[in-house]
This record gives sequence, C-alpha cells and structure tokens, in this order.
Amino acid sequence: MNKKLSTQPYKGSRDFYPADMRVRNYIFDTWREVCKSYGYEEYDGPFLEPFDLYAAKSGEELVNEQLYSFEDKGGRKVAIRPEMTPTLARMVAGKYKELDRPIRWFCIPNFWRYEKPQKGRLREFFQLNIDVLGVSGPEADFEVLSIAIDIMKRFGADEKMFELRINDRRFMEAFYADLGLNGAQITGLNKILDKKTKLPEKEFADYLSKDSELDKNQLTELQKLLDNPTKILQEYAEKGNEGAKSVNFVLIMAEKAGTERFIKFDPSIVRGLDYYTGTVFEQFDLTPDNNRAMFGGGRYDGLVSIFVDEEIPATGLAIGDVTFLNFLESWNLLPTLPNQVDYLITRWPGESEKENKQYAEVTQEVARVLREEGNTVETWLDGDTKLDKQLKYADKKGVSSAVIVGPDELKKGEITIKDLKTGKQETKLLQSSTS
Amino acid sequence: MNKKLSTQPYKGSRDFYPADMRVRNYIFDTWREVCKSYGYEEYDGPFLEPFDLYAAKSGEELVNEQLYSFEDKGGRKVAIRPEMTPTLARMVAGKYKELDRPIRWFCIPNFWRYEKPQKGRLREFFQLNIDVLGVSGPEADFEVLSIAIDIMKRFGADEKMFELRINDRRFMEAFYADLGLNGAQITGLNKILDKKTKLPEKEFADYLSKDSELDKNQLTELQKLLDNPTKILQEYAEKGNEGAKSVNFVLIMAEKAGTERFIKFDPSIVRGLDYYTGTVFEQFDLTPDNNRAMFGGGRYDGLVSIFVDEEIPATGLAIGDVTFLNFLESWNLLPTLPNQVDYLITRWPGESEKENKQYAEVTQEVARVLREEGNTVETWLDGDTKLDKQLKYADKKGVSSAVIVGPDELKKGEITIKDLKTGKQETKLLQSSTS
Repeated sequence: MNKKLSTQPYKGSRDFYPADMRVRNYIFDTWREVCKSYGYEEYDGPFLEPFDLYAAKSGEELVNEQLYSFEDKGGRKVAIRPEMTPTLARMVAGKYKELDRPIRWFCIPNFWRYEKPQKGRLREFFQLNIDVLGVSGPEADFEVLSIAIDIMKRFGADEKMFELRINDRRFMEAFYADLGLNGAQITGLNKILDKKTKLPEKEFADYLSKDSELDKNQLTELQKLLDNPTKILQEYAEKGNEGAKSVNFVLIMAEKAGTERFIKFDPSIVRGLDYYTGTVFEQFDLTPDNNRAMFGGGRYDGLVSIFVDEEIPATGLAIGDVTFLNFLESWNLLPTLPNQVDYLITRWPGESEKENKQYAEVTQEVARVLREEGNTVETWLDGDTKLDKQLKYADKKGVSSAVIVGPDELKKGEITIKDLKTGKQETKLLQSSTS
Repeated sequence: MNKKLSTQPYKGSRDFYPADMRVRNYIFDTWREVCKSYGYEEYDGPFLEPFDLYAAKSGEELVNEQLYSFEDKGGRKVAIRPEMTPTLARMVAGKYKELDRPIRWFCIPNFWRYEKPQKGRLREFFQLNIDVLGVSGPEADFEVLSIAIDIMKRFGADEKMFELRINDRRFMEAFYADLGLNGAQITGLNKILDKKTKLPEKEFADYLSKDSELDKNQLTELQKLLDNPTKILQEYAEKGNEGAKSVNFVLIMAEKAGTERFIKFDPSIVRGLDYYTGTVFEQFDLTPDNNRAMFGGGRYDGLVSIFVDEEIPATGLAIGDVTFLNFLESWNLLPTLPNQVDYLITRWPGESEKENKQYAEVTQEVARVLREEGNTVETWLDGDTKLDKQLKYADKKGVSSAVIVGPDELKKGEITIKDLKTGKQETKLLQSSTS
C-alpha cells in the first residue's frame, strides 16, 4: 500500500460540505438582498494583488505578520488579499472619471491572514464589504450603518443581541488637542481604549492613573468624556466640530428611523486600521460572556488618492463570516436548511439487458419532463438496486416524492408518484415532452 | 506629490466592475440552477491546499510550470488551487463513510495557473465543477453530459454552435493493445491526437507516416478507426469491452433523450490529465474560425484512493468561465443585463439647516417604506444638489421612478412619484410604517 495523503484541509481553512454550503449561501444571499435593496451593486477583484497595495496603508500588523505574500515565477512580489478596501480603492481610482457618483458597491470575497486559528478567527474567511464613495456628508455613514442594522434585523437579531457603537476621529483629535496631549500619549490612549471592553475595569483604571502620563486635569476631562460622552459630544457639535456634528446627525436620523436603540455613541471606539479619517464604528455582540466586536467600519477619505490625484470621500464596513456565523449560532438565529429534492425517479431493476435499458430510458424521460416543470429531480443510476433500497435512500435524503415506473406502468405509459411524507400514491399518464 | 500606485490588476487577473459582475452572476446563477435541477448540491473547499495534493496526480505541466506554490510562515509548502478535483477527492475521502451515495456535487470556485494570458486563458479563472461519485456505470457519464447539454441549451446554444465529443480510455487501451503498440508509441499518438483539431491535416498525416513508427498494418487499422469510428466501436462493444459499451450506452440514451445531435463519438479525444480512467469528453465551440475545446471531463475512478483504501468510482466535468464567456459573446448569446433600481428618492435642497434635516429624514422614511415592499431604492445623500441634477443622475443610471418630496408634499404628508420612462407623475399619501 502506498502512503495515503491526509484528508485534512490546510490549517485555519474550511471544507464546505453541502450542509455547510447551504448555511454559507443562506447568509451570503441574505446579505446580498439587503445590499441590493439599497441600490448597492456587486463587484469583485482578483484574489492576488501586488504586494505594494497593502504596504501603503493597511497597517503594520497586517502587512508584516499576517500577509500571505510571495514572489511569482516572473519575480513579481504578490500577496493574497487580506482585506478588500485597497482593491476597492484601486478599482475606483482606475475608473474615477467614468463612474457615476455616489458609487455604492458591495462584495463578498474570501481573504487570507496568517493568524493563530481560534474561535471567531480563521486563516481563510469571507467578508461582506459595503462601501459608498463620493459623499462627504454623514448621510453616507448613516446609510452604511442602516444597512448593517437591516442585515441584523433580517436575520432576526434585536437590540438585546447587538449594538453599534460609533465614534469619530475628527472629534477625538480635537478633544485630544484641547487636552494638550502629545503624540505618544494619544497612541497609548488609543491602544488601551481599543482593548477597553476586553480589559478588567481595574486594569484600565490602573493604566490611566499610572502609565498614561496624563496630569490630573487631563484625567478629569477624559473621565468626563467616558462618563457622559453625549454631553461632551454636544458641546463639540455646537462649537462646529465636523466629527461631533457627524455623529450627532447619525444619532438624530436613527431616532427618526426608529433604530436609535441599536446605535450608541462610544468614545472608546478607535479601530486599528490606519486609513480611517472620520466616523469609526464597531458592532458588538451582546452575549454576556462574549461581549466583543463582531465587525466594524468607518470613513476613509484619503485612500483613493494613493492612486490618483483625486480626493474621493468614502465610508464603508466589512462583516466577517466566521464571527457572524458564531453570532447567529449563539443566539439561535440559524434556521434549519435542509437539502431540497422534489423527486427521486426510481429505476426498476430489469430482468434482461434489454429491459434494463428500457427502464434506464424511461427514468431519464420522466426526469426530463419534471425538470422542465422546474423541479429538482434525482434519478437512480443503476439497474441492480431493489426498489425498497432506493426508497430508503430517498427517505434518508428528505426527497419529497418518488416516481415508480414498474412493468405495469411501462406497459400503460403511466407513472406512479409516491408522496414520501404521507405515503399517498397516485398514478398518472407520462406526458413526454419534445426536447 | 507622492509616487502613485498603479491602478492595474495583477497580470492575467480581472477586476469585476458591477457591469462585469452582472454578467458573471448571470452565468453562475444559470449554471447553479441547472445543476440543482439534477439534485446536485453545492460545496466548496479552501483556496490554499497542501502542495502534495497536486504533486500526486495532477500531471507534470500543471505542477511544475503552472502551480502558484510557496512556503507559509510556518514552513508548510502550500499551493493556490489550480483545479478542484484533488480537493473534491480529499473531501469525499474525509467523509466517505458518512456520505450517501451517489454523491452529486457541484461548485464554482476560482483557480490560479501561472500561464501566458491570451484569448480564453487567464491566470485567474472560475470553473463550474460537476461531479458524481459512487456510480461505476455509464449512467453517471450520461448524466454529467446531459447537464452540460442542458446548460448550453439554457443559454440558447444549439447544435450549430457546439458539440460534445466523447471517447473512452478503456476502449482506446484495448484498441492500442490489439494493435501491438508499445508505450512510447501510445504516448506519442495520444499527444498528436490531442492536438488534432488544431493541427493542419498534412502535419497530422506526416506525423503518422514519418514519426509514429507504426507499421503499415498498424497505420491501416488506425486509419479505419479514424475514418469509421462507430463501426470499430460497435465491434469492441460486441466483444464486451467496457469502454466501448459505455460510449454506446451514452449514445443510445442520448438518442432517446433527443440530444444525440449534440454528442459524437470521437477517438481523437484524449484529455491531458493523468487521472482519467474511462469516459473522456470535450465540448467544442463550432465557430468556424475558433473550432476548439471549450471544456472537458471524464471518469476518474482511482482518485479517492490516494487518501483512503476505498475505490470510489467518479465522473465529472469542469467548465471555465473565460472560454464560456467567449463562446456566449461570439454567438451573441449574452442578454443585456442592466442594473435595476426601482426608485431614486430625491432630496429637496432645504433653505436652512433645519429644513435640510427635515428633507433628509423624509427621504429616509420614504426609502424605508418602499424597501419594506421589496423594492430596490437609492436615496440622494446630500442637501445641496438641485432636483434636475438628481433626476438626470436617475435617468443615466436607468432608475425606473423618482420620488419627489418638496415643500408642498412635506406639508400634506404626500409624495410625488415620477415614472422616468413615461414621465407620468402621481401623488400619494406617504404611509409610514413602524420599523
């Protein structure tokens, strides 16, 4: 015997057997439907991109540690896409003069990141990316957030299960500047804020009082923001800060839309990626023992200009399929998705080669007629299997009805249809159609 | 100014802008529908696989020249999938005890091969893979061929446009053995037969008479096969050759199914991949100046056993999206696929910030109601643009209707709906729904 190859998929990737694929298609189709209802158009880019595309703006961790990159046989340095936004920006930049604005696009591609596989994180994953380009006002941010909420509602999620927390970098920059913080302090503070929900409260307090190097006055002001964020936000909005005004607009619009229960202003939302320039937000799973960010997004007005001399304002979000599926499972929102087969056309075992061929032919003929009526039809593919074994197979696979053509039926040009749920049988004339 | 990054995709790959994506989705959705009507279930595997998976059976050219392979950061040798069959065999082997047979599966994944991009061939492409496992009889081969024909017919192709040419390796092996050919002669002959349609007739004749090292009697017998293939096939079928019987069965079934005009026995069909063991076939585009194989498939009974001690008979085919699209275009079979938007909710430019917010809100409210009715709805996302510019945008994008809420409508709680095809307007009460 030869040494056998392993049947395991590569670490951190998944085999989608049909049952898994039905779940994946159910999720993707629902995502697609909601995006389309907002007039978003689907697009896609290549799976490999020039390495430089990510080196420019994707952030150090992603590029240095997580990127799958290599040289092709022609000496080009390429990378497997770890996210979509750089490809999107490249594509928009490539046709920015022809494309009508606003550009409303979505896609559901797969990505790879070299990471330690764990709950909610794999090396291969899919993401729904939703982006609107060409709109600088908060209407765009509100639209993207509305789509996120509609998606959650479409799956049956309610305000006990998830929450969108939003912030704005323009607001935070102004706030930090007014506080007189230096660059190092801001970086440190952003890092600890980003981890705040995952950190024990004491650890966060310790950081502020010991490591942050904030003076007493600065600490007091920061505490005010964390204790009563909306009040501070209003003050900055009244002073004309664009970021604060933008968050405010989103909150007011949400109130009118009846979705304010899903959205909360939260100054601890930071987001890791370098390219965000305004609104940033994260969607949290409210499962008590799993309170964590499921996905996020924000405004990135500068990205297209790494390709062309044109500023195109942009805002978007990305929802990963692994965390999303975890969410649906933990809240019991995943419906049963059986394989649906309308008919199994059984095949009567013939007693001679000639008979066998006749039964094979009639099986195909019946299947053809039923398929032309729009049914999902399996046929039995050999002439040796007893009928009851064929019916057992149909039962196990959840097939709705079996069609039987035995010697009697064959003589009369009839078929017997057996409803496998009720057991009822009826006999019909076989209507042959021209193909 | 910084140096700008290129907006070009990586060589041999494609950007799918929305118009391209609509074509791709149209093709994939149609493929999917036909496969499902035969009871085939969709699956997928990872984009990266262990290198060894391809080293085993995929054939030298594919592995040595075309494979994108590299070492991951953990020192594992991995490859980007260049085809699906090895992944399929791995997945089936991984669950062969649990899976009901026959296993009828399809998928539409993307693949990469390092090749010189040219018409019909890119480095990144998609393929519809259709496979049935667990059936050793020719019924499986006939089913797969029937799906291929149904797909072609669903796109409007007829017998003037394409033809399926089938052969069988078991038949050819017996024929070569009876001829007394040695291994080198068979390899040489297979190579030249594989290129036969692309070769000038004289070149083929020259090869046979000069380079093939066949003696006179052998040449006569071979010529008989090429001149009158069906006659030789019948002789072998009568002698009990499994391959000849299998081809025969397919041809008889096709006659009964009324699809014999699409299928032809052709002993020059060879197929390049190593793993085929029985039926082999290729689908030819009959465009006079582009008469070439569009796709192919066949029986590969031994592949699952490279993973487990179990022989699982299998037969399948793969249709590439690049050649398929070329075919549809060259025969004018591609319908117009416009982007479909039912409504643009325009936004009246307000004269004050307060008015602006009111119009923003009502825009969103109308959109929400119309989306809940199942419509595709875009909204205008700023408060500065004049109405006629908004309507011009809607016209250009092919939006069906525009909704206008001006000062009058706002006061009365009404909306005006303008049909952009006919220009007709009607005014309705805005029915707000609870969200």
